Amino acid sequence: HGVAVGAHISLPDLQGFGRRELRVSPDEAYAMSLYQIGALQAIARAQGVRVAHVKPHGALYNMAAKDRALADAIARAVHDADKDLILVGLASSELVRAAEAVGLRAVHEAFADRRYESDGSLTSRREADAVIHDVDAAVAQAVHIATSGKVDGRGGAIEIRADTICVHGDRPDAGVF
Amino acid sequence: HGVAVGAHISLPDLQGFGRRELRVSPDEAYAMSLYQIGALQAIARAQGVRVAHVKPHGALYNMAAKDRALADAIARAVHDADKDLILVGLASSELVRAAEAVGLRAVHEAFADRRYESDGSLTSRREADAVIHDVDAAVAQAVHIATSGKVDGRGGAIEIRADTICVHGDRPDAGVF
Amino acid sequence: HGVAVGAHISLPDLQGFGRRELRVSPDEAYAMSLYQIGALQAIARAQGVRVAHVKPHGALYNMAAKDRALADAIARAVHDADKDLILVGLASSELVRAAEAVGLRAVHEAFADRRYESDGSLTSRREADAVIHDVDAAVAQAVHIATSGKVDGRGGAIEIRADTICVHGDRPDAGVF
Amino acid sequence: HGVAVGAHISLPDLQGFGRRELRVSPDEAYAMSLYQIGALQAIARAQGVRVAHVKPHGALYNMAAKDRALADAIARAVHDADKDLILVGLASSELVRAAEAVGLRAVHEAFADRRYESDGSLTSRREADAVIHDVDAAVAQAVHIATSGKVDGRGGAIEIRADTICVHGDRPDAGVF
Repeated sequence: HGVAVGAHISLPDLQGFGRRELRVSPDEAYAMSLYQIGALQAIARAQGVRVAHVKPHGALYNMAAKDRALADAIARAVHDADKDLILVGLASSELVRAAEAVGLRAVHEAFADRRYESDGSLTSRREADAVIHDVDAAVAQAVHIATSGKVDGRGGAIEIRADTICVHGDRPDAGVF
Repeated sequence: HGVAVGAHISLPDLQGFGRRELRVSPDEAYAMSLYQIGALQAIARAQGVRVAHVKPHGALYNMAAKDRALADAIARAVHDADKDLILVGLASSELVRAAEAVGLRAVHEAFADRRYESDGSLTSRREADAVIHDVDAAVAQAVHIATSGKVDGRGGAIEIRADTICVHGDRPDAGVF
Repeated sequence: HGVAVGAHISLPDLQGFGRRELRVSPDEAYAMSLYQIGALQAIARAQGVRVAHVKPHGALYNMAAKDRALADAIARAVHDADKDLILVGLASSELVRAAEAVGLRAVHEAFADRRYESDGSLTSRREADAVIHDVDAAVAQAVHIATSGKVDGRGGAIEIRADTICVHGDRPDAGVF
Repeated sequence: HGVAVGAHISLPDLQGFGRRELRVSPDEAYAMSLYQIGALQAIARAQGVRVAHVKPHGALYNMAAKDRALADAIARAVHDADKDLILVGLASSELVRAAEAVGLRAVHEAFADRRYESDGSLTSRREADAVIHDVDAAVAQAVHIATSGKVDGRGGAIEIRADTICVHGDRPDAGVF
């Protein structure tokens, strides 16, 4: 189906599904990223495919968008696992900058169904309106991002670069997109 | 120092340090073995070395010595991770047989400081005399195994093939060996 | 609604949902049972109710049905948490015997939707026909147990004492019962 | 020996020994605190003693010192577990204020071997001089706090209330104190 395999690396917080901030050190982030990517690489090899990209999950993704030391550690782990891996990060974030700095191909990501703050970060899931539950509104946001390079954030319209757009597969209505 | 890197794969039982039997299915054993080997392979690659061998830890090692379906699953995972990996298992056990059946190089292992049952299995750590705490006695057992191909088990002398001899590195006196 | 609160204590195996045998020692079983019961007792007190009964979950339930040392450890933990607690165990199993031996009120349990072996144990969930998926058949088994004191096991009809009958609440059709 | 039992409740972060900040919600903090306290209460009851006090561990302790919503949740859990429990918190912190607000007996704690910031918080363990490793210096700080009500922090002398002084039992030289 033309689908590529990616490692969705996460903080060690099963109870919180990786969506709670856990203040790991850069060394810890490097080690756990390399561990998880390597695990998936072996599983992929056993199936005759290869891991093509890496995208941090949940709180790790948002922390790495703002914390350059954390972003550098993750980018270095991705590079050390396979320098041809693509690193997916929040558009214009520290993570994509860290990826480019280490020589990885970086992909700027935008979200169809998440609300944006005026600094380009995602509204925290603790806020009531963090997720755009209405499918039509989410699709409209995606189209708007793709065609105009802008998104209407909580504090007004902001510029956004989108090489890829995320549609959450764990939405009950994900198939409708 | 002429040291090779090996993956010491384990059951998911951190509380019990992997030393309690956990009845995983062959499919579960395959998945967790591949996951752990792959993780170490990535770490090794990042350090410019390669994983040379795999040896199950604790209860997984002993279960795989007797349970052929489990042994087959582990051997298959090792093979799928890298068919040049060496699989270390209890001498003359189902695990080394499974390794040979899948085309891996198998290494028969004997123990310097563990007591043997008459069927060639290791006396359970729940038994008081499972571990030979005296260093001299352990060294003597290792020399005896290496020179005679035999070991004095709880039920008398038994034949034992030893391609390698295990010295537990977590013994307080491991450096004395 | 006339519902009583019970502690459904489990082995420390989240990945396996407590349904894989883990060979804990009696001391470990005592400690983890007491820990889990105490946790629920505090939660219940905070809500103004009390824990009325304890029933081991999954593999712990089945292991304790056959292993008297394990059953004794669990019964002792229940007794030490609150000697007025009711202990629910498989009908005529070691667990109910251990409960009675320590002075607890024991309840013999039968299952509406599980298949029985000829020794009165439950057919392992690894077997294809372990669970009676058809609601009518499960209801019929429950009625048969309640009215005749017998159940049709895999090896023919067996006697069964049933003080209570288990209906699994995690069945999709649990509400139909 | 005149020793009282206390619950040293922690964040669910075994890898990090509870010393990494994990952004749990107040509801999650309430639930996990009540769970852990209840578990220890049952163990204590089984031994014929009672839990007398509660003190959060590591990162939870430091987070609750500054975050009033988190502190309120913990104080409420302690109160709901047993309103006669003593809650130990960092001197003059949000945690002791939350304890007093909910009607608990609060104890202001000072540290013999930890460095202080000018706002009365503890210097993070990520800083090189967070811990006073020299026993004589730590004892001197404890005596100074106890006799003068002051401590020499990184930014100069600060006032400190000390109802109790913490000596870390996991120091190799803890017995020297």
